[in-house]
Parts: sequence; structure tokens; C-alpha cells
Amino acid sequence: MKDTQEKIAIQGIKGSYHYQVAKNVFGPDTGIIECLSFTELVKKIIQKEADIGILALENSIAGAILPNYDLIDRNNLQITGEFYLPISHQLMALPGQTIQDIKEVRSHPMALLQCKAFFEKYPHIQLIEDMDTASVARDIREKKLKGVGAIAGVAAADFFELEILASDIQTIKNNITRFCIVQNENEANTQKGFDKVSLKLVLENQKGILAKVLQVMSEHNLDLTKIQSLPVIDKPWHYAFFIDLLFESKEDYTQTLSVLEKMDISIKILGEYKNAKI
Amino acid sequence: MKDTQEKIAIQGIKGSYHYQVAKNVFGPDTGIIECLSFTELVKKIIQKEADIGILALENSIAGAILPNYDLIDRNNLQITGEFYLPISHQLMALPGQTIQDIKEVRSHPMALLQCKAFFEKYPHIQLIEDMDTASVARDIREKKLKGVGAIAGVAAADFFELEILASDIQTIKNNITRFCIVQNENEANTQKGFDKVSLKLVLENQKGILAKVLQVMSEHNLDLTKIQSLPVIDKPWHYAFFIDLLFESKEDYTQTLSVLEKMDISIKILGEYKNAKI
Repeated sequence: MKDTQEKIAIQGIKGSYHYQVAKNVFGPDTGIIECLSFTELVKKIIQKEADIGILALENSIAGAILPNYDLIDRNNLQITGEFYLPISHQLMALPGQTIQDIKEVRSHPMALLQCKAFFEKYPHIQLIEDMDTASVARDIREKKLKGVGAIAGVAAADFFELEILASDIQTIKNNITRFCIVQNENEANTQKGFDKVSLKLVLENQKGILAKVLQVMSEHNLDLTKIQSLPVIDKPWHYAFFIDLLFESKEDYTQTLSVLEKMDISIKILGEYKNAKI
Repeated sequence: MKDTQEKIAIQGIKGSYHYQVAKNVFGPDTGIIECLSFTELVKKIIQKEADIGILALENSIAGAILPNYDLIDRNNLQITGEFYLPISHQLMALPGQTIQDIKEVRSHPMALLQCKAFFEKYPHIQLIEDMDTASVARDIREKKLKGVGAIAGVAAADFFELEILASDIQTIKNNITRFCIVQNENEANTQKGFDKVSLKLVLENQKGILAKVLQVMSEHNLDLTKIQSLPVIDKPWHYAFFIDLLFESKEDYTQTLSVLEKMDISIKILGEYKNAKI
């Protein structure tokens, strides 16, 4: 639990999955700033309207959210933490109703898709696409909409005082999203005892160079937890990779950096932080 | 140009970007089967209602479309070709109208987002989310909708005889999508002269194993054009990667496979095909 006076920008509204992460990491009394998009969130950090941002970075089903990696990279933000949230969709409505009372369910197209199999048992329910998961929960509460259901996380039911009619209704149960905590470069106090690092490597197209780089990392006992080549190559014959590494000894990590520097490898540190994956 | 009698399943309707790829690769007279989703497309191939499928695999902005990789992998389809299409959004409407006549523009949320900056110059135009890019073009034609614009590719304007009011209106110009051509495993006649391969590797968490594998590939002159670790690890301590490789000599490739086999590396060939990237 950190300083609760900090202003934390999240993508989406209170009750959203990003909000759930903010509460989990920073406690219940955090000053949340709701942002309509990831771009707006990053802007608020750069302009110092927010101290900290929370943004989704990858998903166990869809993979990396590269535009968010790009936002972090281009705006020189630092990743100062991470959090893994199992995405568990709940069907919710105004209290006192049963699933038979629900005539329509509104949610984000992705959430509807993920829960399609569940609703095959309830052909009387019409599925309607909406902009967001949590905002439908808010609408139901504010407009007192009877017969309407939302699909969103537990936090949305809590926050908007809705009743959960069915839990964990997504078809693929193992849907985990990795969120990261970002700050301005100069404000990011590297945490003591960090054991994970996110790097961007730019490699010239020299034969076997990636194998050599990974070899150096392995020799220094760094454990690769993620690697992804970038689909766009800005300069011809240059390749860029996003890499996450885990290590037990900080010395192994700093030695790796100095060996790679001598090899003339261009490295950008996107963040040094504490591993949160179990 | 291939046999034009083949039935080709595409995601979306005629006029869509997938259709544009089908026309480019197989010529104008192909028997197109329109599919509402990637899952439906794969089903049509497995059930032999279609001979060939075309599906988007990655995008230069958003990165890999991992669910489609997963569809290919799980259903044991073979990639038999690839095609790179620059996504160039056009604003189109019924002929005879100017941009001042357009009151609303409907398109897929992603297309609207990509063209948002363009529409800031036209505050009289309302942007409305729709299911798809090309289907709006079809609606405009079929219902003779005046004052309504669609954002879609050139093929949609051609197919539905709409007039292009503004070209290349997306903010990021370098938006290239990589499509692949897939077939049932047993029907995929590996093309003569293939020089590219897509592999799925499953590696045990043995120290430095990825570095060793890449080293073998590099020693045999294989050029890595893509690498991506999978976010979900089915078995603990096992890692999976999608890798694309280019080579000049087929012997280099087959020798690599046999060396890796001796190293007890689990390799699945997702496809052997001709490189289409320039």
C-alpha cells in the first residue's frame, strides 16, 4: 500500500477493471482520475495532472497491447509496477430481479463475445453492444433501468450497488490481464529490491545477434519471461524487441547491461520493478 | 494467379479488406464465401465448404492477432501463403454528393478512431459506430442513403459503386496488415520454392534454451523475421513461441529442423510458403 494522496489516472470509469487494479494496488481511498482513452491517460501524466497511471499491457488471450507499449516508449514513461488481474465477468442488474426479468444485456463487444456461450441458455435475452463494461452498470444505477443487465467486473457491482445474477460467465476461464503502473521518468523512484525489468532492444541485422544477446542474458542467470519483435521496422535492417527479464541478483542484471553496452546494443529501460506474477 | 474454381472463405463481406486480398491473390473471378467471424471461416474450411481461407494475422500498429494464430494452431490448418495490404481508409458516399452534404459517417470503431484527426476539420459530421467497414458501404448503396458516409477500403467503393470523397484519411499512414492464406493440412500442397516458414516452438524452461535454438537457426543462415512468446503457458515451466524464418537454401532449413529435433525441441510447422514481404 502506497501514499494514498497520489492522483491515479485509470482508463475507464470507477467500477472498471482498471479501477479494480487501482484499488488492489493503492487501497480504497485513492484519488482516481477517470480517463476516456489511453492517450488521455498518458497526457494527464505528462502534464502532471496525475502522478501515476494504470494501463493494461497484455492479455492472456489476445496478447500484447502494442499501442500501449508504444505510448510508454514514445512518451518516455517508466513502468514502476505490474499487476495481474483475472478478468471475471459478472452478470449484474438492479437488486430484486431474477435472470428471467432481464430482457437485454449491454456491454462492450469483446465482453459480449466472451460470454456468448452462457447466453445461449437464455434466448429471451437480447445482447446489445455498448462502449464499455462499467459504464452500462453506471447507467443501470443512475437511470434505474429495470430488465437491463450489464456484464462487468465485481468492482462495478460493488460501486454501483448492483446485484450479481451470475458469476464468472466468460467461456474461457483463464483470462488474465497484465496491468502496469507508469510514472514520469524523473518521478519514478526505482523501487528497492526490484527483480524484473522491461527493455526495448534495437538490434542491427547482424547475423545471429539476437541469439548472442539472449546468450549473454542466460549466462548471467536472467530469466526471459516475454519476448516480442516489433512489427514495424522504422529503419531498414534494424529490428526492435520488447523483452521482460526476471533475476535474483541485481548484480547479474547490471553486469548484463554493461556487457550488452560493450556489444554496442541499443537498450532502452522501460521500467525496473517488482515482479507480481506468481 | 491460381485456379479460379476454388472456393475462398473471407472474414467479412465483399468489398472488405479481406476481399481486397482475395482479389489480389486469386484474381477477380474467385468464388468468395462471406463469413461473419474468423471462427466461422475456420469452420467452413474444416467442413470443406471452402478450399481456402484468408485471415488477418498481424498489423503494423496493433501487432499480432493471437486469437487467429490460435485458430490455425488448434485446428491444424496450414499457412500456404501471405499477403501484405496497406490499410488505406477512404471516405465514400453515394455519387454526386460533396463532403458538405455528409451529415454522418458510420464505420467500425477502430476505423473511426484511426480517422478521428481528419474529421476534426468537419465538425458538422457526426461519427457513429457500426459493426464493420464494408457493410456500411453496402447499406448506403442498398438503401440509397444520402448524407451518410462510410469509411472503408477502395474495394468497397468499387464494389458498391460509391464515390470517394477523401482518400487515405487515417492519421497513421504506415498501417500494413499481414494476411495469410490457410488450408486444411492434408490439402496444402507445399509450394515449390518456398522460402519462409512459420513455426510454433515449445521449449522446456532449460537455461538459455531459446538462445541455443536461435543460435542453431543463425548458424544455418535462417533469418528471423518475427518472434513472439505466448502469453499463456499451458504447462508450468514450458514456454511457447511463434517464430517466422526466411531462408535462401531449403537445405539450410531442413538441416536446422533435424538439429533441433536431436535437441528434443518440440516444433510444429504452421506453414511453409513464399515470402511476400518486400
